[in-house]
Amino acid sequence: MFLSKKANLEGVSIEGDVTVIGPSSIGRGTVLGMYSVIGYPTYGKIRSLNRRDLESYDDLSEGAIIGENCFLRSHSIVYERVKIGNGVQTGHAVLIREDTIIGDGTVVGTHAIVDGGVAIGRNVSIQSGTYIPPESRIGDGVFLAPFVVITNDKYPASKRLLGVTIEDDAVIGANAVLISGVRIGEGAVVASGAVVTRDVPPRKVVVGVPARVVMSREEYDRKKREYEEG
Amino acid sequence: MFLSKKANLEGVSIEGDVTVIGPSSIGRGTVLGMYSVIGYPTYGKIRSLNRRDLESYDDLSEGAIIGENCFLRSHSIVYERVKIGNGVQTGHAVLIREDTIIGDGTVVGTHAIVDGGVAIGRNVSIQSGTYIPPESRIGDGVFLAPFVVITNDKYPASKRLLGVTIEDDAVIGANAVLISGVRIGEGAVVASGAVVTRDVPPRKVVVGVPARVVMSREEYDRKKREYEEG
Amino acid sequence: MFLSKKANLEGVSIEGDVTVIGPSSIGRGTVLGMYSVIGYPTYGKIRSLNRRDLESYDDLSEGAIIGENCFLRSHSIVYERVKIGNGVQTGHAVLIREDTIIGDGTVVGTHAIVDGGVAIGRNVSIQSGTYIPPESRIGDGVFLAPFVVITNDKYPASKRLLGVTIEDDAVIGANAVLISGVRIGEGAVVASGAVVTRDVPPRKVVVGVPARVVMSREEYDRKKREYEEG
Repeated sequence: MFLSKKANLEGVSIEGDVTVIGPSSIGRGTVLGMYSVIGYPTYGKIRSLNRRDLESYDDLSEGAIIGENCFLRSHSIVYERVKIGNGVQTGHAVLIREDTIIGDGTVVGTHAIVDGGVAIGRNVSIQSGTYIPPESRIGDGVFLAPFVVITNDKYPASKRLLGVTIEDDAVIGANAVLISGVRIGEGAVVASGAVVTRDVPPRKVVVGVPARVVMSREEYDRKKREYEEG
Repeated sequence: MFLSKKANLEGVSIEGDVTVIGPSSIGRGTVLGMYSVIGYPTYGKIRSLNRRDLESYDDLSEGAIIGENCFLRSHSIVYERVKIGNGVQTGHAVLIREDTIIGDGTVVGTHAIVDGGVAIGRNVSIQSGTYIPPESRIGDGVFLAPFVVITNDKYPASKRLLGVTIEDDAVIGANAVLISGVRIGEGAVVASGAVVTRDVPPRKVVVGVPARVVMSREEYDRKKREYEEG
Repeated sequence: MFLSKKANLEGVSIEGDVTVIGPSSIGRGTVLGMYSVIGYPTYGKIRSLNRRDLESYDDLSEGAIIGENCFLRSHSIVYERVKIGNGVQTGHAVLIREDTIIGDGTVVGTHAIVDGGVAIGRNVSIQSGTYIPPESRIGDGVFLAPFVVITNDKYPASKRLLGVTIEDDAVIGANAVLISGVRIGEGAVVASGAVVTRDVPPRKVVVGVPARVVMSREEYDRKKREYEEG
């Protein structure tokens, strides 16, 4: 257990053995799960240290900001300079790296990785095992099914990172791959297992490898209603 | 380290720092790995608490039941109301959520996620990184290769969960995706990387995106024997 | 915290609660992340024990060898008889099982699994969530994008393991699947989402399910340069 003296933990619940580093500010009603680490410093900073222990990390971490009534489940790691809104939940063993912003009400599933420098909107559902690299931009109300893989380099390993943009209310199916640079339009749907190599227009549904438009969001929503009625 | 006074841990080996919550019953000869959590309460219960710490969790967890001679490796989490048979092994950092039943002799690989409300038979092999959502039903002797992704919503994010059923002795290849509602017949085989959008008849082998029948299980077993002979 | 008296930890930084088992030898300047386990014994050995706790493990573990100036991030597990070179970095919650060799300067990303009996060269980049099973052989300078899945059994669950070989400087795209036994030639490129069922000749680029040659490495490198110039 290590709780930085610089951290603001008023009204925070701490499940068990937890590590909070630097001037982290965590809102009332938030729960920190066992074996979690908050405010972990970036590699550049750690590299510069002679002694590498929690006291030294605490000296140079800028801390993380986490809102009220959040729930970060066990074995999760949140780096410094992460800013998480209110009512955000994570699953277990989630990684959220530095310079990431996550909006109110968003869920980040078990084993999901948000690999730093990512902007995620409000009320986004990121299911288990999903991978989101630097430069990704995700709007409000987006749904990412389990094990979606987003990339940020079109010709790896190149010198240029080019992020994926997912506009509001888009739905990305399980195990789909979004190739560096594509834009998924507002309300568009990507089917499970699809590999998206080109932009998807707003409110279109794409399927396959490579992904191709097969219907409109209106038709998808009609099928969805029929499915919901059983 | 937190070991509930209500828990039955006679003849259990505890590797190191372990958390056992509620009236969990764990069989003789079972090993609990370091940094693991057993009997973790569901979110609905935690939400209702004013204080969120292990003592409070211990008051309301119904505990987990784990059989004899099991091995739960480090960093794993087993929720309350999970029932695990005898001789079950997990890899590291496995998540098994509430109301899941796992039969004798089954293996759950490293980083696999069994996301609650799942029934898994005996002698099932679930390899690393596989994702099994609520409502899934998995028979005896099934083999799930690494990073299989199973879904439970045909038109996400809908109001209806519709599970996948995998009958006895079926084989699902690596990174295959099984779409909500499909039934994989007894002894059927799904190739690696396939996306299964329709039912697979018993003892048929399917391949591709979307998956199509390419041979019988008999032919697969013939090729398998040739392969085994090198 | 458990640090074996047999271990050589001179000049090693220990972030927090860490477990080092057996005569592990760890080089100067290396950092061991919180909640990590080094030198974990194989199952065969643990099974033979009457008492299963860290003292007993310490008696029979052969330890791991880790070079200088490495960084093993939190929640990672390194088994006994692993040999890691100098300047190797891992992400968080990485698993490296027994009898694995990793060359100098290699990176193993968050949640990656190296499942034992694997040889990995120098300056390899293994991105997050990638799965590498026993019998895999990976040359120098290889790039494995996030969530690559490599297999080692062509007709699961058979009695024969047949590894994948990836020659020097090959590039494997995100979420690609490499089927048991294939050889990825020197400098070859596998596109994201591809399923590779046959050998890929040196310096060829393959795409799709199943993967087919679409261009040469020279053409790929030309496109890469154009992409880098924006």
